[in-house]
Amino acid sequence: MKCVALCGGVGGAKLALGLSHVLSGENLTLIVNTGDDFTHLGLHISPDLDTVMYTLSGLANAQQGWGRAGETWAFMAALRKLGGEDWFQLGDLDLATHVERTRRLAAGEPLSHITRDFFASLGVGARVLPMSDDPVRTIIHTPRGELAFQHYFVRDKCAPAVTGFSFAGSEQAAPAPGILQALGDPDLGCVIICPSNPFVSINPILAVPGIRAALKTVRAPVIAVSPIVGGRAIKGPTAKMMYELGIPQTAEAVAAHYDGLLDGFILDETDSALAQQLETTGLVCATAQSVMHTEQDRVELARNVLDFAAKR
Amino acid sequence: MKCVALCGGVGGAKLALGLSHVLSGENLTLIVNTGDDFTHLGLHISPDLDTVMYTLSGLANAQQGWGRAGETWAFMAALRKLGGEDWFQLGDLDLATHVERTRRLAAGEPLSHITRDFFASLGVGARVLPMSDDPVRTIIHTPRGELAFQHYFVRDKCAPAVTGFSFAGSEQAAPAPGILQALGDPDLGCVIICPSNPFVSINPILAVPGIRAALKTVRAPVIAVSPIVGGRAIKGPTAKMMYELGIPQTAEAVAAHYDGLLDGFILDETDSALAQQLETTGLVCATAQSVMHTEQDRVELARNVLDFAAKR
Repeated sequence: MKCVALCGGVGGAKLALGLSHVLSGENLTLIVNTGDDFTHLGLHISPDLDTVMYTLSGLANAQQGWGRAGETWAFMAALRKLGGEDWFQLGDLDLATHVERTRRLAAGEPLSHITRDFFASLGVGARVLPMSDDPVRTIIHTPRGELAFQHYFVRDKCAPAVTGFSFAGSEQAAPAPGILQALGDPDLGCVIICPSNPFVSINPILAVPGIRAALKTVRAPVIAVSPIVGGRAIKGPTAKMMYELGIPQTAEAVAAHYDGLLDGFILDETDSALAQQLETTGLVCATAQSVMHTEQDRVELARNVLDFAAKR
Repeated sequence: MKCVALCGGVGGAKLALGLSHVLSGENLTLIVNTGDDFTHLGLHISPDLDTVMYTLSGLANAQQGWGRAGETWAFMAALRKLGGEDWFQLGDLDLATHVERTRRLAAGEPLSHITRDFFASLGVGARVLPMSDDPVRTIIHTPRGELAFQHYFVRDKCAPAVTGFSFAGSEQAAPAPGILQALGDPDLGCVIICPSNPFVSINPILAVPGIRAALKTVRAPVIAVSPIVGGRAIKGPTAKMMYELGIPQTAEAVAAHYDGLLDGFILDETDSALAQQLETTGLVCATAQSVMHTEQDRVELARNVLDFAAKR
């Protein structure tokens, strides 16, 4: 089955890894959030693309949840000694990605070309597309003003209360080449919204003109996997954001967030009562073990999602 | 005694280290070649400034003759894997220098400010100035065309025959702030031209408008130390270049190269016959052990040069 999946970093990348084990490379297209991208020390950093890249190529540090396995930190130590900014950790291995990507962007290559080549260099068969070759930057609104995403997420460790979001540049952005074609492919079997943060991982993708509309009209079923399990986020600030925004911290609220887009919704097996309740509203639901600890968990969830989609 | 020394990388940095042991920080100003500077992978690299910085701060890899002690190479391995250019070795520690310098240059800071801060961060007391804050690029002329310095030096390992040199940008360049003041200081005791390559380390400095004229009119004695010993270069392509340019590979030819600038010339002790011969032409000479194997050798040569200058 041909599948398009939308994802951000960690949580989304886990399901993406599962999908990449179940589907052949030509049958899997990932559309990855680049709203977190930022320039740091003059380097263009694409955290979600990199998390997906390291995860799918087997280079990720699974324990840590970000960065590369076997990473070393000589650069950071030397940078600190020279008085450089050290709030964002850049490992020696990881740095190669940022330096080479920045060089190629400066030479005029689109992010999607560089991404394609990087994933190919690391032996990843799936097609991975940044949501756009144009810069879109997620801005976090807080009572004390606006914060660039990485300042909120890494520097300030998600401490500021969130009052809203904007995606600077999104209005001028175009979907990366291949996205609308993949969504318009008559052989497409399903679209999966991975269990990523709906506000800062999936919404930036949906903010790129054309993508939301394409999801609304796509013939294949659109299936979301809830990132909220038992009223808590599996990882990251999703539940905290919902609380601060006055939204119930439930899978139901996630489904409502994607209102008008979904043909099916997958909740964690511990939320089966909620799934039954949601079904009464007309949304077709399924449950699965969605907390992915092992690689086997990821593959299993991918299979369950694809099976569910095949029946829709 | 107040001293200004002109130097390039390796050979010059060794004497600079000796001088920094003998003179207090406020009495030593180093003017360093930046004609070798280049942009690689989008990073501004200043090889001679860095060699001087690592040497004076005790961070240099003495065995290797370039780079830092305890360097690691994770970045290069990861870069190679991504298909990046790998002809120029960038160690993980060294990379911090290039990334932070590039960031600050892009923010509009002059190279001399950044250099001052870097040396201070690493505890170096001497004042170290790039020859200019403006870009000057050494170009190597060969029978097959022109080569940027690092392409000649590192990528092509000095193999191409040299027919001449140019210093692109030198006509528009100004000496870095502090250079002309240091040379015009009434308390200046001597100017030392370190045993660096006369063509590609010292000549770029002299090509910056104002510096050669200041050396001609400076009241303090100008003393050069020959980089040619017994008809051979201690290190690097100096002798090879002289051969290709049809210049005898002798200390005498080095003295002739600096014609009109020198008040004294120091040859290696193995060249004492040549020193006596040169004295008959009116150039005051001295001999010293100029091949510096140990730190003690560097300090000893520095003392000898300063003693010689004090008597001029």
